[in-house]
Amino acid sequence: MVKSIRGVLLMVCGYFRGVCHVTPNLSAAASGGRDGGTSQVEVAVIQHVCHYTFPSAAQASSPDRHRTMNPDITRERQHATFDVEKLTHILDGGPEKTRRRREIESMVFSDPDFKEEDPNFLSRSERYDQAVKKSAQMILKLREYGIADPDEIYCYKNMVKGNQNEALGLHFVMFLPTLYTQCDPQQSRKWLPLAESFQAVGTYAQTEMGHGTHLRGLETTATYDPATQEFVLNSPTISSIKWWPGGLGKTSNHAIVLAQLYTQGNFYGLHAFIVPIRDMDTHIPLPGIVVGDIGPKFGFNEVDNGYLKLENVRIPRDNMLMKYAKVEPDGTYLKPPSAKLTYGTMVFIRSMIVGESARALSKSCTIAIRYSSVRHQSEIRPGDPEPQILDYQAQQYKLFPLLAMAYAFSFVGQYMRRTYNRISGDITQGDFSELPELHALSAGLKAFTTWATNSAIEVCRMSCGGHGYSRSSGLPDIYVEFTPTCTYEGENTVMMLQTARYLLKSYRQAKAGQQLSGIVSYLNEPKHQRVQPQPVAARPTVVDINDLASLVEVYKQRAAILVDLAAKSIEQELQQRKSQEDAWNNSAIDLVRASDAHCHYVVVKLFTDKLVEVGDTAIHSVMSSLALLYALHGITKNSGDFLQAGLLNVPQVLQISARIKELLSQLRPNAVALVDAFDIHDKKLNSVLGRYDGNVYENLFEWARRSPLNSTEVHESFHKYLKPLRSKL
Amino acid sequence: MVKSIRGVLLMVCGYFRGVCHVTPNLSAAASGGRDGGTSQVEVAVIQHVCHYTFPSAAQASSPDRHRTMNPDITRERQHATFDVEKLTHILDGGPEKTRRRREIESMVFSDPDFKEEDPNFLSRSERYDQAVKKSAQMILKLREYGIADPDEIYCYKNMVKGNQNEALGLHFVMFLPTLYTQCDPQQSRKWLPLAESFQAVGTYAQTEMGHGTHLRGLETTATYDPATQEFVLNSPTISSIKWWPGGLGKTSNHAIVLAQLYTQGNFYGLHAFIVPIRDMDTHIPLPGIVVGDIGPKFGFNEVDNGYLKLENVRIPRDNMLMKYAKVEPDGTYLKPPSAKLTYGTMVFIRSMIVGESARALSKSCTIAIRYSSVRHQSEIRPGDPEPQILDYQAQQYKLFPLLAMAYAFSFVGQYMRRTYNRISGDITQGDFSELPELHALSAGLKAFTTWATNSAIEVCRMSCGGHGYSRSSGLPDIYVEFTPTCTYEGENTVMMLQTARYLLKSYRQAKAGQQLSGIVSYLNEPKHQRVQPQPVAARPTVVDINDLASLVEVYKQRAAILVDLAAKSIEQELQQRKSQEDAWNNSAIDLVRASDAHCHYVVVKLFTDKLVEVGDTAIHSVMSSLALLYALHGITKNSGDFLQAGLLNVPQVLQISARIKELLSQLRPNAVALVDAFDIHDKKLNSVLGRYDGNVYENLFEWARRSPLNSTEVHESFHKYLKPLRSKL
Repeated sequence: MVKSIRGVLLMVCGYFRGVCHVTPNLSAAASGGRDGGTSQVEVAVIQHVCHYTFPSAAQASSPDRHRTMNPDITRERQHATFDVEKLTHILDGGPEKTRRRREIESMVFSDPDFKEEDPNFLSRSERYDQAVKKSAQMILKLREYGIADPDEIYCYKNMVKGNQNEALGLHFVMFLPTLYTQCDPQQSRKWLPLAESFQAVGTYAQTEMGHGTHLRGLETTATYDPATQEFVLNSPTISSIKWWPGGLGKTSNHAIVLAQLYTQGNFYGLHAFIVPIRDMDTHIPLPGIVVGDIGPKFGFNEVDNGYLKLENVRIPRDNMLMKYAKVEPDGTYLKPPSAKLTYGTMVFIRSMIVGESARALSKSCTIAIRYSSVRHQSEIRPGDPEPQILDYQAQQYKLFPLLAMAYAFSFVGQYMRRTYNRISGDITQGDFSELPELHALSAGLKAFTTWATNSAIEVCRMSCGGHGYSRSSGLPDIYVEFTPTCTYEGENTVMMLQTARYLLKSYRQAKAGQQLSGIVSYLNEPKHQRVQPQPVAARPTVVDINDLASLVEVYKQRAAILVDLAAKSIEQELQQRKSQEDAWNNSAIDLVRASDAHCHYVVVKLFTDKLVEVGDTAIHSVMSSLALLYALHGITKNSGDFLQAGLLNVPQVLQISARIKELLSQLRPNAVALVDAFDIHDKKLNSVLGRYDGNVYENLFEWARRSPLNSTEVHESFHKYLKPLRSKL
Repeated sequence: MVKSIRGVLLMVCGYFRGVCHVTPNLSAAASGGRDGGTSQVEVAVIQHVCHYTFPSAAQASSPDRHRTMNPDITRERQHATFDVEKLTHILDGGPEKTRRRREIESMVFSDPDFKEEDPNFLSRSERYDQAVKKSAQMILKLREYGIADPDEIYCYKNMVKGNQNEALGLHFVMFLPTLYTQCDPQQSRKWLPLAESFQAVGTYAQTEMGHGTHLRGLETTATYDPATQEFVLNSPTISSIKWWPGGLGKTSNHAIVLAQLYTQGNFYGLHAFIVPIRDMDTHIPLPGIVVGDIGPKFGFNEVDNGYLKLENVRIPRDNMLMKYAKVEPDGTYLKPPSAKLTYGTMVFIRSMIVGESARALSKSCTIAIRYSSVRHQSEIRPGDPEPQILDYQAQQYKLFPLLAMAYAFSFVGQYMRRTYNRISGDITQGDFSELPELHALSAGLKAFTTWATNSAIEVCRMSCGGHGYSRSSGLPDIYVEFTPTCTYEGENTVMMLQTARYLLKSYRQAKAGQQLSGIVSYLNEPKHQRVQPQPVAARPTVVDINDLASLVEVYKQRAAILVDLAAKSIEQELQQRKSQEDAWNNSAIDLVRASDAHCHYVVVKLFTDKLVEVGDTAIHSVMSSLALLYALHGITKNSGDFLQAGLLNVPQVLQISARIKELLSQLRPNAVALVDAFDIHDKKLNSVLGRYDGNVYENLFEWARRSPLNSTEVHESFHKYLKPLRSKL
């Protein structure tokens, strides 16, 4: 297996989708933006991240292409004004990438060993069972086919996992990478063969019942006993029980446990220890280990997120991961060098979540828009046949801004990945100069895109009416699997406050005359530094609402003004003799708002920048409409900000509303083609409503007939309760 | 059983919580506001509605009162500035109502026959089984205790059901009431004894796979055959299969089927027929009947929402419900009188949903705020102990506006119930004069409150961090059981457009010089009729942001202006030679926005009005702060509207932001007391995070240990897949 840092990251990313290390991060809700190293070593579930932007295609190549199509959806496709395949290439990163992705997809989807039951028809235990089976099979297949390139591994796994999570996720995404990066040579020789052969199946136990985001608050202790050269691990309180790690409950026989180190009577903070938790042969928990599943969750039913209580568990001294920090046999502690590499990992993962938002949103839009094109209901004009519900303006207004957002986030995801790759070389060579900006950006964009996507998935679901509420729509699953992204890898409010901290720091540097570089350089522009609340319309208005460059500018100015407002709020608090910390906490609302505006600006800018790369005229035209819709819709939803700052005047806001309606009509003929371009294979989408062929009703009926409640004609409850009831009355 | 209309409605309401007639309504997304009689006969799931506003209490009276309390939560309670019990009385409608509610609650909660397993630990089939068992038991208990008063029946059932749904719900909420109201005397003599003795267990089958909201589109046919004096029922297409009715899949042996009537070669529209679907003795489906469960859903796991395909099913002529319309033996059709009574039922149910929003929101706030008071995390000031997360401004800003909203919706719910009761006497006597306004108001407020609550529940869940994602928090269940309210009983966008239709009609009447009465009378005020978009700050500003009456005024003006804008949009479309219908559809965005503003005004107004009734000074003070927070927060979230219309100027918007921060601090000491006042019994709340005693962590651990995955130490998948994997590598 590849063990370079890039290799490890790609492997992480390859296994992401199944990780399932949901952490109860949020609780620090708004911990003032300090995350005390949040998630520096913690990696969480992300869904199929990495190089291939969009899942699968088969539509273009499979024989299913010739199945009977719903005539409505066929007509929709005929009316598209652009070449869908070319847009797919743009999303994938080139035709070759599209081709290879589809090749791997069809390898997986045609493999009878991966045929499975819809998890919605299974019990939790059966779902877990099916997931373990699939993980084991996948490992064998990769060996059998000799797939070794990380990108290819990633793609293959991504398809196998489908929309569910991987039972062995944390073994790959955290256990192995931590061993690769934190073992000293002797430890590597011992542990890597065990882990790579799955003798040792492991997870990463950091989060505790009482602490997620705030790592310094973790309570598990590891006390060195020089007499036996062992560490003694303990969970001193209920709240110190390890809680949430994926694969901890039933799957793993080892855990990398993060614990507060004590040696020679001194305290040295958080360190990582390899702790055997189950007998490698019988899988029975070892003495002093209380381990189990934390119980059902909103989603993640495949995953045994677990608890671990340590009661005087003794492990040998060399079970502490010693590549950096060390404890010598006599108990002497040797300090580690800088932890900036893990800082890089954290940035990588948050950047990846942005792409994850794009994918969840693309799936949701695909389902809602295809269904809206085959569902007919009610009437617009009396006497006419029932229109497709996509013809209702209210339906378009729900869905098309989300479609635009899906494209926006896709391009932002591409940018984040590219940027990370660009500077990851520098990082490896110890040059961290660009990391702070990327750190701030990834934190904010992680929060911005996951919050927006989280709400958007539910809008898509509800836009499908009652059928959206059925598990057959696929949308409930997309939602429950996606929603943890708002919490894990740094709770969103905390992330926004981290970005705010960077913005405020930059703002102060700019005020002090320092020249800023990068994406915050707008804080240098002098006019933003003297922005004061003032009557609307007092500012000269030069915005052209049809010009994206002009809109980028106006978003930028809004961000600058809101950063300025947040800074002023802090100053005011300080003037009232509040401490720095209280001033910060008492300005949290303004700080979050400033970060949000900054991220919004970045997204509008990156979408606009992307258009330059699009050579095809037809695609350029439709992408421009989407970008314009994204930008204008964002303005109407936040029109108070723009009016308040005098960046737009009232007539312009009214023009924008009118322009949005035009854009909805303009995009209407391309709506289905625009979701087709995401090229999400039916097996990956797993939605009766979102099927490529549009044959919704007959398949809804087929799906329902397979419901477990239909396995018998008469449910036993009739004989047990209903029939006896009659005689008792 | 009580058979008066009021009795039937109360019974409906009593059984509501278990109904489960989720309908795929939405699809007409924005059907131009015409709902063709949407839901006129259709009743859907609502959770414990009716006379008692809030569930249960026991805290005040039970011996558990003396259990060990979490010291944080005890301190919170000590700091409250008002008498919690008195506020509970206000919410219940008087101390006597509180007392009797608690009495019935403790009757249920101390009954060992209702002890049950957490449904989250059960399979779908087991959940359904447990629900049928509970329904059967409840029927016996009510007889045993001789509980006959509808209010008391309601309360008892409400407690028994807890947070789950009732398997027999539709029998009570639709089957029986429809028999009571639509049977002729002869039919009553035949069917009522069968239904009341549960020989005939029934449901109400209206919604089809292809049609929900748009009733005229329903496709099931009932063709009269005079030769045999039978109706022949058919599902002519896949989309005509009955889909969604609760209890249809496995529970019922009869269904009231809504079908398009054909007789003597003529078409007479939708009528109701009693169709036997299963053998009353064996429960086996009858010939020509294809019936089953529609499969797993987002929630409603207790309920067998079903499908029904009719293949030349013959029923006797007198199985058509003939109180109003009739078909004579020779096939002659006799017309029914007006259908306004069912129109009243629809209004009743939508009004009840408003209260339902309040209850779901109260539960969610109770959980999130109690948990935030016992969860400590991170730091505000370095070196200090970790603060309660409720001390973070960002957390307060998430939760306190929702707490204010919970109170607002509670009072709006009380108002709607009172108003309905007031005019229901008139309705019974054939006076429908006030019904159109109540119809418009109930449609809009149903949409306004369910949308807001739907998002709010998820904000509460995410504000609990990772633990919110666990089923133990109770929040995932609250969400999935509540979210269908946005779709059933009239899809929300359609509802908003119905309200808009009434507003526009009133607006035109006002313009024509007619004097309007009731809540829309503000459209008469001349200044609103000449409102034009104009530069902000051009209008003289007289708003006092600390005065609720002044804020009600500004909300009213906003509504008037947005109604005016919507009307102008329609006019503009008409000027471009669009038809009335296209003009309406092309203005849907503006129309929804106008309705939303109208509803927002009503809520702010009713909250403000309620304060007059509050005599207790301490409670009045805290309620005033909540009302102010509700109003000001709504302004900041929609500040564009207020600025655009010149109703507020920029300095005022900034003052409002500052005032909101003050209100958050002001409410902080009362936060826990304010959710305690909802008085939701722990057994009803069913949340480890929201427990009254605040002992979260130990109970989280206890709950997890009961997870079914922990029933064996070693899951079978280890022996089946993981161990064999090693030898294959």
